[in-house]
Amino acid sequence: MVSVPHPLCPLTGDEIQSTARLIESVWPQSVSLSFKVITLSEPPKEKLVPYLQALESGKTPSALERRVFVCYYVRGTANLHEAIVNLTTGTIESNVKLGPNVHANAVYDEVQEVEKIALQDPRVLAELEKLKLPEGTVPGSDGIEDDDRMYQVFLYMRDPANSSEADSNHYAFPLPVSPVIECVNYKVVRVDVLPTGADATVKPLTAYQPKPTNEYIPETQELRKDLKPLHVNQPEGPSFSVTPIGETGNVLSWQKWNFFVGFNQREGMVLYNVKYDNRPLFYRLSLSDMSVPYGDPRHPFHKKSAFDLGDAGAGATANNLKLGCDCLGSIQYLSGVICDDKGNALPMENVICIHEQDAGIGWKHTNYRTGRAAIVRSRELVLQSIITVSNYEYILMFIFNQAGEVTYEVRATGILSTQPIDHELDKVGVPFGTVVHPGVLAGVHQHIFSLRVDPMIDGHTNQLAYTEAHRIPRDPQQNPHGSGYKVVEKTIDKTSGLDIDYDLSRVYKITNPNSLNPINGKPVSYKIQAPPFQKHMGDEDSFLHKRAEFADHNIYVTTHRDRELYAGGWYTNQSRGGTGVRSWAERNETLTPESDIVVWVQFGINHIPRIEDFPVMPVEILKVHLKPVNFFTKNPALDVPPSEQTVNQSTLVVTKKEESECGCEPSVGSKL
Amino acid sequence: MVSVPHPLCPLTGDEIQSTARLIESVWPQSVSLSFKVITLSEPPKEKLVPYLQALESGKTPSALERRVFVCYYVRGTANLHEAIVNLTTGTIESNVKLGPNVHANAVYDEVQEVEKIALQDPRVLAELEKLKLPEGTVPGSDGIEDDDRMYQVFLYMRDPANSSEADSNHYAFPLPVSPVIECVNYKVVRVDVLPTGADATVKPLTAYQPKPTNEYIPETQELRKDLKPLHVNQPEGPSFSVTPIGETGNVLSWQKWNFFVGFNQREGMVLYNVKYDNRPLFYRLSLSDMSVPYGDPRHPFHKKSAFDLGDAGAGATANNLKLGCDCLGSIQYLSGVICDDKGNALPMENVICIHEQDAGIGWKHTNYRTGRAAIVRSRELVLQSIITVSNYEYILMFIFNQAGEVTYEVRATGILSTQPIDHELDKVGVPFGTVVHPGVLAGVHQHIFSLRVDPMIDGHTNQLAYTEAHRIPRDPQQNPHGSGYKVVEKTIDKTSGLDIDYDLSRVYKITNPNSLNPINGKPVSYKIQAPPFQKHMGDEDSFLHKRAEFADHNIYVTTHRDRELYAGGWYTNQSRGGTGVRSWAERNETLTPESDIVVWVQFGINHIPRIEDFPVMPVEILKVHLKPVNFFTKNPALDVPPSEQTVNQSTLVVTKKEESECGCEPSVGSKL
Repeated sequence: MVSVPHPLCPLTGDEIQSTARLIESVWPQSVSLSFKVITLSEPPKEKLVPYLQALESGKTPSALERRVFVCYYVRGTANLHEAIVNLTTGTIESNVKLGPNVHANAVYDEVQEVEKIALQDPRVLAELEKLKLPEGTVPGSDGIEDDDRMYQVFLYMRDPANSSEADSNHYAFPLPVSPVIECVNYKVVRVDVLPTGADATVKPLTAYQPKPTNEYIPETQELRKDLKPLHVNQPEGPSFSVTPIGETGNVLSWQKWNFFVGFNQREGMVLYNVKYDNRPLFYRLSLSDMSVPYGDPRHPFHKKSAFDLGDAGAGATANNLKLGCDCLGSIQYLSGVICDDKGNALPMENVICIHEQDAGIGWKHTNYRTGRAAIVRSRELVLQSIITVSNYEYILMFIFNQAGEVTYEVRATGILSTQPIDHELDKVGVPFGTVVHPGVLAGVHQHIFSLRVDPMIDGHTNQLAYTEAHRIPRDPQQNPHGSGYKVVEKTIDKTSGLDIDYDLSRVYKITNPNSLNPINGKPVSYKIQAPPFQKHMGDEDSFLHKRAEFADHNIYVTTHRDRELYAGGWYTNQSRGGTGVRSWAERNETLTPESDIVVWVQFGINHIPRIEDFPVMPVEILKVHLKPVNFFTKNPALDVPPSEQTVNQSTLVVTKKEESECGCEPSVGSKL
Repeated sequence: MVSVPHPLCPLTGDEIQSTARLIESVWPQSVSLSFKVITLSEPPKEKLVPYLQALESGKTPSALERRVFVCYYVRGTANLHEAIVNLTTGTIESNVKLGPNVHANAVYDEVQEVEKIALQDPRVLAELEKLKLPEGTVPGSDGIEDDDRMYQVFLYMRDPANSSEADSNHYAFPLPVSPVIECVNYKVVRVDVLPTGADATVKPLTAYQPKPTNEYIPETQELRKDLKPLHVNQPEGPSFSVTPIGETGNVLSWQKWNFFVGFNQREGMVLYNVKYDNRPLFYRLSLSDMSVPYGDPRHPFHKKSAFDLGDAGAGATANNLKLGCDCLGSIQYLSGVICDDKGNALPMENVICIHEQDAGIGWKHTNYRTGRAAIVRSRELVLQSIITVSNYEYILMFIFNQAGEVTYEVRATGILSTQPIDHELDKVGVPFGTVVHPGVLAGVHQHIFSLRVDPMIDGHTNQLAYTEAHRIPRDPQQNPHGSGYKVVEKTIDKTSGLDIDYDLSRVYKITNPNSLNPINGKPVSYKIQAPPFQKHMGDEDSFLHKRAEFADHNIYVTTHRDRELYAGGWYTNQSRGGTGVRSWAERNETLTPESDIVVWVQFGINHIPRIEDFPVMPVEILKVHLKPVNFFTKNPALDVPPSEQTVNQSTLVVTKKEESECGCEPSVGSKL
């Protein structure tokens, strides 16, 4: 029997280990298990909603059963199992073998092992021999998956001129040899030689041609000397407060916002029960997945298409954030715990940082008659997690402000995934990539994200609608001067994939038809402001397109099902499609004012690399905003205290008027 | 004879007054002049370019002639004159009467006068009488233009319950009476009664119906008490330096950036000769105009369409910025000077503020093998100006960063332009507006901006090109798996209006075909990242559409002409079209690798008001980015010093683990 402080608390290390031991207990002792995921199986919505409502009305609801989702392999086999463990009863409720064509995510231990295996294989070493690499060369690798459960390993080497530096940028030295490793016995099954020309031809390997270095670590740079320090001080501390719930849960309160913060292996940060001024807004918010397909059509690059959450996990790859490096001001960190390969607890320290930031002016009006300015600054609360998925970094943020707005921000940074290109193509290039260093190609690729929004705008009966702006036809009565236009609104009545038409100002909003604005009678709503992106570039028959079940529409709307959490399906690794949000929407279910909907917001970039993106790319920023529309009765930030020097304590900088230093004529102050 | 420290220095107060006196001297003493604009007429590019080049190579070029642009009326007439004064020779080079259908901008003194006249007119008072306004009512007004040079005045009143408060929000109390005033003798020529129903019917005026208050000033709010102070401290001062050039010019240097800052009545901030690490990027950058057309098709609302720069001036309406209110940290202010109605100098204090801001993580990579994170924060330099155009505010910013990027940011805030609506429509509404307060309608409208970019990417011979991403057709050789895609590039060979196709990732870039990247051989370039917007909603035959010559395309490209500075033409007030960028592009000139082009970037919002936008709207943020593409040979921010706690001095916040406060069950720490 287990009792927990809150049903949304992530699993504790003890719960993880107890679960693993329970699963192991049903197998013979000679069988070894390789655990991929041990995570909270959240209570069904039909039970959790009344539970939360009871809690909030001051009652003590009866405890919900505590369940765990487990995914594991029988080591030395391709047998993937999925189990549900009930910790409340201490029983295994289900334990099934999955497949075919269902594969688990990669985990860190395995990736490290695969790298080692690749570099010890005699066939790989024989191919590398042909490159006549300089003495002291240290090849590294990055793995991506192939058919069956396999790793396609791309090899790199450290700059031979700097090969003792463990943080040398090996992505500037990609090698044309790519072993493939199977995942039962972890053997090299094939060694691919990469095409390095303008077409798919694979040429015989020849000796490596020396290349210049291209490092990113600071000691290799001549650093700027004229950047003065900038401190953020919060002398009275932060305006937020974090209330720990048991070992692993946290409730965050800030500026009328209140929500529960969770963390898991797959999605990293998850926010639950998000309320503003005690009004319900979002039952659950998380990044649900992303797809990163590459455009190089040639074998084996045509397979490059990572689902960084499903294949690796935004929790499992989360950085241990460092005070004063990843954010400024007063910072609080939250830690998580996931499982390792052996079913032990793997603590993840400081995986979420919480801080406030000043976001410039929030609103201002100057009465030009009196000259009086009323002005408030916009303070934001940021929950940030940073993930490293091999070469790339994603900075993931939930941002709340005082105007009732939630923003999901992604910053893409890190290192481009590179491949070798023949030096004679350095200044000619290929149309599916950019030469970012002599002999180094960065292929075109997309990053397409899916944000899962399980709304409860003033309650759980929500609909999706959109507004557009249409010209009013010219007409002597209705629009005599041809200048008029109007707002047209449409409610979405079927589960579907939907697009934003920016040319019509089409804006989707999540409405509650059962809650009307007391002033203007409109259903309360939150609109979705999402930037445009080019949809998945793989054609509709390609596996890359089929697998990325979310990547073909700006918006998906489905009816709520407890297990439908991940836009690309539960098992994305080498998936075949048919198990994600596109399939769920195709149920073509009717949506009514009483429906409980889930909205999936897609956004992304088609990354045509610039040379400026190498060796580490400047952040590319993407933002999705959720903003109230006729939800309040006025600007909710009207009550923010005014921006005043007595509080802000800024410093006036004055330049002495002096002789011009630009070498031009001095002012002689002469007049006409 | 006049000599100035730099040919781009804005006019001094003395120069303004000398110019006005010179113009007056050619008129009989009995004639009074009303000055609308007295501003620097910048030297022609063919002279200024060699001048600047000489300066930069350490030579002392011969002084350029100093010219002034003047626009004025003969008071008491409709006679508008435009003059060019040569201050170097002390002569009037031209002085011509303009028209018909050419009208000058509004100026502050005139607007104030028009308001007074409207409220003293017996016909206006007679109409107001019918509204039976409460005792002590203080109507105000906001003017917009009509045919001929006229003001259509919209009347408001202060909340009768708070009528002694000069900063009471009168936009919550619009009145249905709208006088029209001509601008020769400044008389009321007509009093319009506004349609307040669902159609164009004008109903007889009836008694005012009381409404609740809706104030924005802080003393009327119950302010939040839980927002803790946040200070930005720069103990060693800012990283930028401002070098004054004469009385009115300034050169700004920051993190390899260097440029000249000007300020004028119309555009406000103008940046000249923008260089990064001594490489030329932009000859001139400014907001060139904006159009704000409204969608209510009914008289007189169908005329509402402000060109806030051409009709009023981003310089003339610039706020006097206050230390510690409009920005944080170490702040330097620049002041300007424009002319008043009488041709005297009108000092404009603190119209530009300069400060740095931390913009979060600039780039990061963690080597997952060693665990070492390399991270830099992004520092930005901000030049900000805030303009108040009657009810609306625009926060206008040029932002520079360490990755060689320039961002133009607009924040729209302030108060919606409101009009009365019958109370029986409060919860029914009309399709061309939103009820934001009982009896108050905020009409739909657009804000369409035009940023003028006169580039010099590695020199003055620039071209405009775009890239798109295209699927490679499925083919056994070229794209056997249907996953491949490629970049397609096209150079624009004619002056034209162009659109962004976001579905193809179409990105425009300004290239220099005469300067190739030394690593990958691509022409150096800067790309334009602009957000989507719905084009002008007026139909092609409407005056609103014809006048907004820039508002129908994302991008215009023209060949450089000295006088082609403003996208909507020189005189936008009651303009008829035919004089802006659309007309210039229609010259259909051939663009070659030797052309000197100007690029006009349009962006904006179709503002469908929310009730949350009232009484003052939370900022709506728009950004246009100019980013290097194959201009450098690597990430230019690679040399930014790493983000470290020793420099940043952040504060760790720790919450004591304590009993949960959420009223749920305490943890009993039990296990399976």
